[in-house]
Amino acid sequence: MVEKPGNSTRPLMRRIRLTISYDGTNFHGWQVQPGLPTIQSAVQDVLGQIEGSPVHVTGSGRTDAGVHALAQTVSFELGNPIPIENLRRAMNRLLPHDIRVLEAIEAPPGFHARHHAVAKTYEYRIWREEVCPPFERRYVHHHPYPLDLGAMRSLAPLLEGTHDFSAFAASDDTDALGRTKVRTIFSSCLESREPLLIYRVRGSGFLKHMVRNIAGALIEAGKGNLGRQRFLALVEPGCAEKAGPRAPASGLFLVSVEYP
Amino acid sequence: MVEKPGNSTRPLMRRIRLTISYDGTNFHGWQVQPGLPTIQSAVQDVLGQIEGSPVHVTGSGRTDAGVHALAQTVSFELGNPIPIENLRRAMNRLLPHDIRVLEAIEAPPGFHARHHAVAKTYEYRIWREEVCPPFERRYVHHHPYPLDLGAMRSLAPLLEGTHDFSAFAASDDTDALGRTKVRTIFSSCLESREPLLIYRVRGSGFLKHMVRNIAGALIEAGKGNLGRQRFLALVEPGCAEKAGPRAPASGLFLVSVEYP
Repeated sequence: MVEKPGNSTRPLMRRIRLTISYDGTNFHGWQVQPGLPTIQSAVQDVLGQIEGSPVHVTGSGRTDAGVHALAQTVSFELGNPIPIENLRRAMNRLLPHDIRVLEAIEAPPGFHARHHAVAKTYEYRIWREEVCPPFERRYVHHHPYPLDLGAMRSLAPLLEGTHDFSAFAASDDTDALGRTKVRTIFSSCLESREPLLIYRVRGSGFLKHMVRNIAGALIEAGKGNLGRQRFLALVEPGCAEKAGPRAPASGLFLVSVEYP
Repeated sequence: MVEKPGNSTRPLMRRIRLTISYDGTNFHGWQVQPGLPTIQSAVQDVLGQIEGSPVHVTGSGRTDAGVHALAQTVSFELGNPIPIENLRRAMNRLLPHDIRVLEAIEAPPGFHARHHAVAKTYEYRIWREEVCPPFERRYVHHHPYPLDLGAMRSLAPLLEGTHDFSAFAASDDTDALGRTKVRTIFSSCLESREPLLIYRVRGSGFLKHMVRNIAGALIEAGKGNLGRQRFLALVEPGCAEKAGPRAPASGLFLVSVEYP
């Protein structure tokens, strides 16, 4: 039997790009884990309902359990011809309220949220007052102890440039064994908006736990436990030390992902 | 047996005044309800641990399930001679993170958080954009539909002054049967801080559900379903109508309580 051209039973697959925001508090991170609520599972479940068959989505990167996103980018293929504006509404009706689709657009064929990302920006938020307001508790790291902001501010930009960030990588990142730990940081700075202290970093890409380990190292510096020389040594080639301790997930936000 | 004066076994009771803040999302309101988590229960449990015996606390007023407080006032008597600054710290260590003690002070004997309150301010927050950010979802009423802000703005101040607010009282407020429903509103206004619309009201006191019923009526006016004449009639003496519908709890904040 010869199929007539243009009469295939396979629907025309569209490439879709979403910008989503989530409160990571109640999720075990981005990536699907059997039996646990994750962002990727929730998004895939909802798309599966709309598509009528399983849909696999790709994020620009994984976020850890408890980490938030102001804007995460997601790509996938969809056969359902639903108008793109209706897709966003349908997803927001079906998703839990701690995940929202901010934007849904048709992407060029082959668009890949992870491979094509050229920069990401993260913020790490520290609440410095003695009492953390109940409304902020999920979205900050509460650190009501003295910090030498001058020391922290002077160290943050030293990470800018291309360095081996092995010292800031997760100790359990077995996925990345043997892969390069060299990354490029475009900007790295601290901003004080009392009682918030915000560390903002923009870079080509980040290792697992890297931003939380940087935030942890800056807090150590603010406490007087890590000086300029030891901080600089952490991004020297062949550094055998580990930065740390890792700052808690609640303070970390993926702010934006950039594409060419 | 004759007791020596000053040698009583009853500890010297101090009158304490707290300012507390809470995220009401996970509580069944202020008032103790057997088997349900409430703000009053949580505060009394913690004080009971510190005191070593039950402590009864009084709030400036009840808040409903899901309603938040930026600053609620609480009064009680304590025998434990713990320094007042330590009391606040001890309470914050023991309380769940969605309730925080902002301030603890020694109050004059007889100070009563409810009887002595002379004014209260509430805010009702409406999120008007189509998508409600995950981080706001617990702290607003999401209403992504057109509203005639001009109409709402012109009606809000009509509630200022002393009126019978029966039309805005809870239909199930059996506690208040036969009690006066006359209250004085000092100020009542709408502020637009796009995408937030905030209704702020300051008054001598409020009936159960009164602020949420006012917010609901203003939203009805914004939708074109309630005109100036019918709105004014709601605070006419002997009004038999009920304002409504009641706006959801998540948007309501007790902002402050004032004392002479």
